[in-house]
This record gives sequence, structure tokens and C-alpha cells, in this order.
Amino acid sequence: MDFVKAIQWQDDCVILLDQTLLPEVTTYLKIDNYRTMGAAIQKLQVRGAPAIGIAAAYGLVLGLRDVADTESHKTFFERLTAVSRELNATRPTAVNLSWALKRMAAIAEHYFSEPIPVIKNQLLTEAQKIHVEDKQMCAAIGKNGAGLIQPGMCVLTHCNAGALATGGMGTALAPLYTAAATVDFQVFADETRPLLQGSRLTAWELQQAGIPVTVICDNMAAFLMQQHKIDLIIVGADRIAGNGDTANKIGTYNLACLAEKHQLPFYVAAPSSTFDFSLADGQQIPVEERAADEIRHGFGKKTAPDGVSIYNPAFDITPAELIHGYITEKGVLVPPFPDFLKNNS
Amino acid sequence: MDFVKAIQWQDDCVILLDQTLLPEVTTYLKIDNYRTMGAAIQKLQVRGAPAIGIAAAYGLVLGLRDVADTESHKTFFERLTAVSRELNATRPTAVNLSWALKRMAAIAEHYFSEPIPVIKNQLLTEAQKIHVEDKQMCAAIGKNGAGLIQPGMCVLTHCNAGALATGGMGTALAPLYTAAATVDFQVFADETRPLLQGSRLTAWELQQAGIPVTVICDNMAAFLMQQHKIDLIIVGADRIAGNGDTANKIGTYNLACLAEKHQLPFYVAAPSSTFDFSLADGQQIPVEERAADEIRHGFGKKTAPDGVSIYNPAFDITPAELIHGYITEKGVLVPPFPDFLKNNS
Repeated sequence: MDFVKAIQWQDDCVILLDQTLLPEVTTYLKIDNYRTMGAAIQKLQVRGAPAIGIAAAYGLVLGLRDVADTESHKTFFERLTAVSRELNATRPTAVNLSWALKRMAAIAEHYFSEPIPVIKNQLLTEAQKIHVEDKQMCAAIGKNGAGLIQPGMCVLTHCNAGALATGGMGTALAPLYTAAATVDFQVFADETRPLLQGSRLTAWELQQAGIPVTVICDNMAAFLMQQHKIDLIIVGADRIAGNGDTANKIGTYNLACLAEKHQLPFYVAAPSSTFDFSLADGQQIPVEERAADEIRHGFGKKTAPDGVSIYNPAFDITPAELIHGYITEKGVLVPPFPDFLKNNS
Repeated sequence: MDFVKAIQWQDDCVILLDQTLLPEVTTYLKIDNYRTMGAAIQKLQVRGAPAIGIAAAYGLVLGLRDVADTESHKTFFERLTAVSRELNATRPTAVNLSWALKRMAAIAEHYFSEPIPVIKNQLLTEAQKIHVEDKQMCAAIGKNGAGLIQPGMCVLTHCNAGALATGGMGTALAPLYTAAATVDFQVFADETRPLLQGSRLTAWELQQAGIPVTVICDNMAAFLMQQHKIDLIIVGADRIAGNGDTANKIGTYNLACLAEKHQLPFYVAAPSSTFDFSLADGQQIPVEERAADEIRHGFGKKTAPDGVSIYNPAFDITPAELIHGYITEKGVLVPPFPDFLKNNS
């Protein structure tokens, strides 16, 4: 099953699908220097934690290639630190961003004694490795989750945990892309207020792949379930505590409550790196509160009065007891989680 | 407690608050002829079933006043029929619209033998009576429901069943306006996709009245309940079946499920005329499906791809077992409903 590519390395440049313009315009940006890459991450032209990590790694490659091969190692590594710092500051809260940049720095250190062209090459190789590993992780999640999707099912998803958020076929959407090769089914996509990643991005990428998708407003899912029009819910995750409590896009807990009420299976799809065993439960996961204007000025029009208070939590916490299973690259797991997950995350 | 006036009769004209421009602009329209009134109803400048009924009654008065007092009764009544038909066609599905126009026609018939100026006067009196009765009905709902609101409570509401939808202080919001005179409490308003009546209208009218209100997206209510930030839910109703099953704005059933899960009281506020004892249960209530563009082009910007399927039910059905009580002008009732409700609706 084909899926859209959020990020590609091509002719010594990065090709980014500009996600800020979707679904109105499909534009690919050709990025040949690290400053433009930094701006692209900042402006959300590329988004989704895994995709941002890959973008930053390629950004570092771009930021170092105009250092002359004859320059001193001191100059090269000073430049590496400066570019890395600049890229890292574009979205300081995205964990994959700093993770990817640290991994790149470690590779450069490893080849410290080699000539500069060799270090440059190793950095490009490492960026491509980060990209490929992410793609493989998505494919493994897809393979492990595909069995949940039976012919004729209607699958509900929330936000965008798809190809647009990763270097591959996504996390929550990966089982759908994988199953679509052999099974006919339908998808309902919550539009996902306030930023509408469901209607703008998930609906768009599933449409591109030819998977039947219907957009609904977030408040319509209950009515669909009441009418037995939903068979399965799959969402992504931003962080999973040791006991399985899951932070994900606001509205996820709402769906989990509705799934329980209507006795529907509710699954979380995420790579093992999403598990945070330093946290005993979900109460310890901090929930980011975002700007009121995301709700007040939704899409260019004022939709709530000035001066009225607005509450805009970006995530919510779904307790583990509402989650039927966790679709990871290592299998579909349930708590208590096996040691191999803890050791490798 | 003061509340905004959606519709007023002043200096022989109707003054309408233009609801299409809220909350960006507060404009009052001075309407002096029935054609402009018809257009105002059609364009949703006035909305909410009770408010539309009142607007249509006044519209008929405006449509008949330039019939000369010396004209024949035949001419007068032909004009009445024509104007009434035109007004009735502006929103053919709103029950209060035809109900108000029928009531006006009956009054004209009743005074058939009187001179034309007398009939005109009686029509104005009847329109004002419809308006005053609605205002009294709202006040009675307010009085009956106010006792539910205790000091310090957080009350969640959905859509707009307030002053903007009626000739008085609304239905679901009436208990809030009444309680606000003596009790401090807070309101959370669901923004209510797709048409955002919660953030555009409910937040605005409560702000005007000085009642503290916080806007949330529809998918955030569950998270608030999980954090014990909601104490009570009050919503309006479009139609209530004989067993108490209630049709109301899409998203109401979602809230009712969440209220059950979090053990919160969930009330429906509505005049007794909303009860439809010809229907045994909610499955017999037809649910209107509205245009995809309300979701696709919600905010003046395209937020879902062309060609993607969109499902847009305007209402949902909440089963009676999830509803703790029905706040009516005749008291707070529970099924099985008393005969005096059946006889008077």
C-alpha cells in the first residue's frame, strides 16, 4: 500500500511536504540549507515527533556541508555544535528532535580522527539510518496491528499519527495501510479540534492512499457508536507511563470513555520509545496547555469573544484500564509490560 | 440578572441582534418590512426555534400594516395568507415558525367582523403576547432549575439554548441567569462544532451578563470531568419523545455518556411544548443530516480535502436513562411524565 512521504532525501536536498497548506495546496519544499530547515520545523511545515527528528538530522547534514574539506576539525566541530543548537531550539519540547541531534553528534565524535569528508559522509549515513529505522518501526507496527482489522470494519482514529507524522507509514495509521492490501474496510477520522489534524491531514493522507475515509466532528463519535457504525478505535500516543496510562492528543480520553460505554475495542499504536518507565502512572505526565488563540481564531476568523476565558489542554491522559492493547513494533502488548520492552525503550 | 435581547418591538419596528456576525461585531438590525424579516430568518440573523416564531409573528404585523385601512377584508386576508406563506417558507422545518403564523391567522379570523385597524391591532397584540409568553416560559424554567446550582459549582452546557435563541432568558441558560442573582458559579461552554454556537453565542451572551464562562473544544469535556472540574451539565432540547429520549444538538449524547461515566448530574431544560407524546421513544425522532460544507469550510478556510466523505448529523438522541431530570416551566420532571404535561403541550 502506497502512502505519502512527509520527508525525503533527494539530490543532496531534503524534500518536505508542506503540512501547513494541506489540504488546500500540496507543495513540496526543496530544502538545501539548515536555516530553512529550522524555519520549516518551527512553522510546522514538518510535524510529528518522529518526522521532526529525521528532519533535524538531515538539517545538521545540510548545515555542515559548506564547511570546506580543508578546514580544521576544531572549526568543523564548532560549526556542528552551533548548527545543532540552532536546530534544537526550533521546537524545544519535541523529544525526538534533541534525541536525533544527540545521536548525530555521537557519530561525529566516533569518527573524530577521520578526515572531514569522511565525517560528513558518516553523518549523512546516520541521518538516513534514523530515517530508515523509523520507516521499519512503522512497518512493524503496521504488521503487528493489521490482524485487528477484519473485512467490512469501520475504524475510528483521532488526530494524525500517520505517514505525515513519521518517516514511514505512521503509527496509528500503519495497521490500516498494512491491512488495506488485503482487506476492505472504512475509516472515520475525528476532525480533532483545535488544530484539525484529523480533517486536514489524516483524511488527506488516507484519501491519497485510496482508503475510504469519512470526516466527522469530534462530538459525533458517540452517535456513530450508538448506531453500531464503529467497530474498532486506534489512536497514537505521545507518552505512555509504566502502568500503561497514555498521554495523547486531547479528545483521546473522550473516545476511550465512549469505547467502554459501547463495548468497543480501543487500541493505542506507538513505538516502544514512547514508553516512559520512569513514570509510574499517567498522573505524572505533564499536560501542555496551549494558547487560547488556537481556539479563538481557529482558522482566520474569530469564533469566540475577546476577553472570554479559554481552556486549551493539548493532551489528555487515558487510564490503562480503558486500553485493550498497545500495538508496538515488538508486538501487541498489555500491562504489566514485558522486560524486553523496558530494556529496549 | 440582565440578559441580551435577541428580538425587540420598538417604535413600530423589530430590532434584531444580528447573530451571524457574533462575536466579531454586535449589530442591531432595524426591520420595518416583512421581506427583510423573511430574509433575516433565512440568513440565520435570528435563530433558535422560539425566537424564530416570535420574529415571524412580528413579520406578519409588518407585512399587513401598509394595507390601507379602507381596503376590503378580502384584500386584507389575501395579503395575510400571502405574507404568511412567504414567511413560513423561510425555514420550512422550524416548528415554531408555522405554529406562530397559525396562531396569528386564527386571531385575525377571530376578529374577522371588526374593521381592519382593529384586526391589525389585535395582530400586534397577539405577536406581543407570543413574545411575552415565551419570556415567561423562560423565566419559569429559570426559576425551576436555579435550585440545582450550588455556590462554587462548574456548570457545563452545549450549543446555545440561551437568550439568543428565545424571546427571554433562554432554556438551558435560564437556570444560570436566575441563579446568578444570588450564587457565584462558573460555566464551561462547549464550542459546539460545526457551527460553533457555544463559542460564538453562549460564551458571548454569558459574557454580556457578567457570568464567568470558559470556552472549551467539544473533545475536552471528558478531561475536565476526569479532573473533577465539572459538577453539573444542563443542555437544551429540540424534541423529547414520550419516554424522555431527547433529540438535541449533536454532541449532547457524547456529554450524557461522559456524565454517566463520571457520575455527574445531567439535565435537559425545555418548555413543555418540546415534548412530543406522539412518539413512543427516541428512535422515532428523525435526525437531520446537514451539508458537508459546514464541516469542510467551517471557518472560511478549507479544513478537509475535497472529495473526502463527510458525515454531518445535526442532532443526536440521548436515551432517557442518562437524563436526571427535565427542567420545564411546569417543574423539574422525570418519566413517566405526569398527565398535566401531556394535556398542555
